[in-house]
Amino acid sequence: MKLSKTMFSLVISTTLSVTAMADEPIQPVQAASGINTAQAELGKKLFFDPRLSRSGFISCNSCHNLSMGGTDNLTTSIGHKWNQGPINSPTVLNSSLNIAQFWDGRARDLKEQAGGPIANPGEMASNHEIAVKVLQSIPGYRKDFEAAFGTEHIDIDKITQAIAEFEKTLKTPDSRFDQWLKGDKNALNETELAGYQLFKETGCTACHYGEAVGGSSFQKMGLVQPYKTENKALGIYALTKNEADRYKFKVPTLRNVELTYPYFHDGGAQTLSEAVSTMAKIQLGKDMPQDQVNKIVAFLKTLTGEQPQFTLPILPPSVDNTPRPEPFK
Amino acid sequence: MKLSKTMFSLVISTTLSVTAMADEPIQPVQAASGINTAQAELGKKLFFDPRLSRSGFISCNSCHNLSMGGTDNLTTSIGHKWNQGPINSPTVLNSSLNIAQFWDGRARDLKEQAGGPIANPGEMASNHEIAVKVLQSIPGYRKDFEAAFGTEHIDIDKITQAIAEFEKTLKTPDSRFDQWLKGDKNALNETELAGYQLFKETGCTACHYGEAVGGSSFQKMGLVQPYKTENKALGIYALTKNEADRYKFKVPTLRNVELTYPYFHDGGAQTLSEAVSTMAKIQLGKDMPQDQVNKIVAFLKTLTGEQPQFTLPILPPSVDNTPRPEPFK
Repeated sequence: MKLSKTMFSLVISTTLSVTAMADEPIQPVQAASGINTAQAELGKKLFFDPRLSRSGFISCNSCHNLSMGGTDNLTTSIGHKWNQGPINSPTVLNSSLNIAQFWDGRARDLKEQAGGPIANPGEMASNHEIAVKVLQSIPGYRKDFEAAFGTEHIDIDKITQAIAEFEKTLKTPDSRFDQWLKGDKNALNETELAGYQLFKETGCTACHYGEAVGGSSFQKMGLVQPYKTENKALGIYALTKNEADRYKFKVPTLRNVELTYPYFHDGGAQTLSEAVSTMAKIQLGKDMPQDQVNKIVAFLKTLTGEQPQFTLPILPPSVDNTPRPEPFK
Repeated sequence: MKLSKTMFSLVISTTLSVTAMADEPIQPVQAASGINTAQAELGKKLFFDPRLSRSGFISCNSCHNLSMGGTDNLTTSIGHKWNQGPINSPTVLNSSLNIAQFWDGRARDLKEQAGGPIANPGEMASNHEIAVKVLQSIPGYRKDFEAAFGTEHIDIDKITQAIAEFEKTLKTPDSRFDQWLKGDKNALNETELAGYQLFKETGCTACHYGEAVGGSSFQKMGLVQPYKTENKALGIYALTKNEADRYKFKVPTLRNVELTYPYFHDGGAQTLSEAVSTMAKIQLGKDMPQDQVNKIVAFLKTLTGEQPQFTLPILPPSVDNTPRPEPFK
């Protein structure tokens, strides 16, 4: 008798929770699946390897620092010879959920993205030929490529494939908000829940929806009021030259947003409070009272999920004939 | 009968091995012990935290990269605003064994060392006051300092103490050479053993001895023949103004030397072969034939120990009132 009561309430609670989730514009982050482990392990090393840059100093992790929410927490990034980057580094966390990569979506997927910074003169300032030559010279990497791809022959396609495969592992499930979504009503407090209600009622979920709470669409920055910035990025317009695409950027994910400051494509908002207030104004035409802003900020902080947990990779050493970095040339 | 034979040979082999070790100028790396875990865990975060630099981009790990033998594998390091450092970054691995820190030994110990780069305008370019202010503002760090020191009150003394405590954990036991030292005769092949004999006979162990195979004394670079370099470092002379100290540097450890290229205080030798050949010539007055150099190099590569294994630390996020980095000011 006791057993069937428990079973009954389990059925009820599962049904309720599924119903609740089906009604919500945000879905829980799913753990990464279908990963090629050998490729991801190789990709992890490559992600941390500054030898992919001309200087030997900058790795993927320099600007997408996995100790810091997959970002550099800088307004815009530092590149080769301290070049000031044109745009804020988006987080690599949950980036496999993005509709496309880069703020203007110019890379179709993570693999295509990974080749960009390596060869960008203002970022890692190497090129694909040198990157291949460096890795091909290193016995430890030849072994890893053999394990991951069945051949010691290294090319940029395999390099970017491995990095992308590692990046696919960088999902952050089990945030407090996701626990709530899955039915744990105590996972959020009243303020946070009120913040979520406001988030929906105000219209934030028009763009920030889905598993990544964003990342699924492009939207004009300054939809209702123009956004004031000295940043020169033009959004998709730079690719299409279509006037309607001016200042249209990929909607960023809000997962782990507590960790990914500063905000916007220009890194112009230092705090979440500032970001929420500005968004309400320029995207939705609302002067949001500070107490409402605070509630939404409280909600947003519940989107911090489990950060990637892995052992710092040890990189295979260069050998005598490995091309050396040129940091000061 | 069989048992006692085994026991007898065990006794013999233990005795032999102890005798052998007692006769050797090099001792096995001991695992780190007596570590304050809470301080070391905090220190690990600080070691990886670029917010200790003015730019928010450079951490201890930037130049003492634990994925790359505790070095940056650059001739001389890159500092704030891409400043070219004056000297090659020594490895942080096994650095607790050093007689003193920095190439000229100007810091007594790891704790004293750790304060240097933070405030060096050409390195991390922050200062101790700002570093304290940044950390003190971050709730996650206040909690960590409370756990490590029993107080949330942060000062530079505790910051450097925690970093030093983490660095003490960075020992690399169980290299193949250490396995051989401990009695496993199959741990080295003939070439490597011949290299070790040559290493001793040639006189390398006059300076490169002990647990760290170096790090225990200071020696003039260019003892027999002057060392040619454009590097301006003067060694201990810069501190003592004593003519006998000109170009006298701390003898570097050879532990993990396969990983810590390029070599010498000026990073002037790109390969181990070049380094051994130059050392033989300028320190010992010997023109060493290449086949002997090769054997010594083979031996040196057996000094690569177990690299530090730990989970990449997740850093506590800054909050609204945390002073922001200034990378481009």
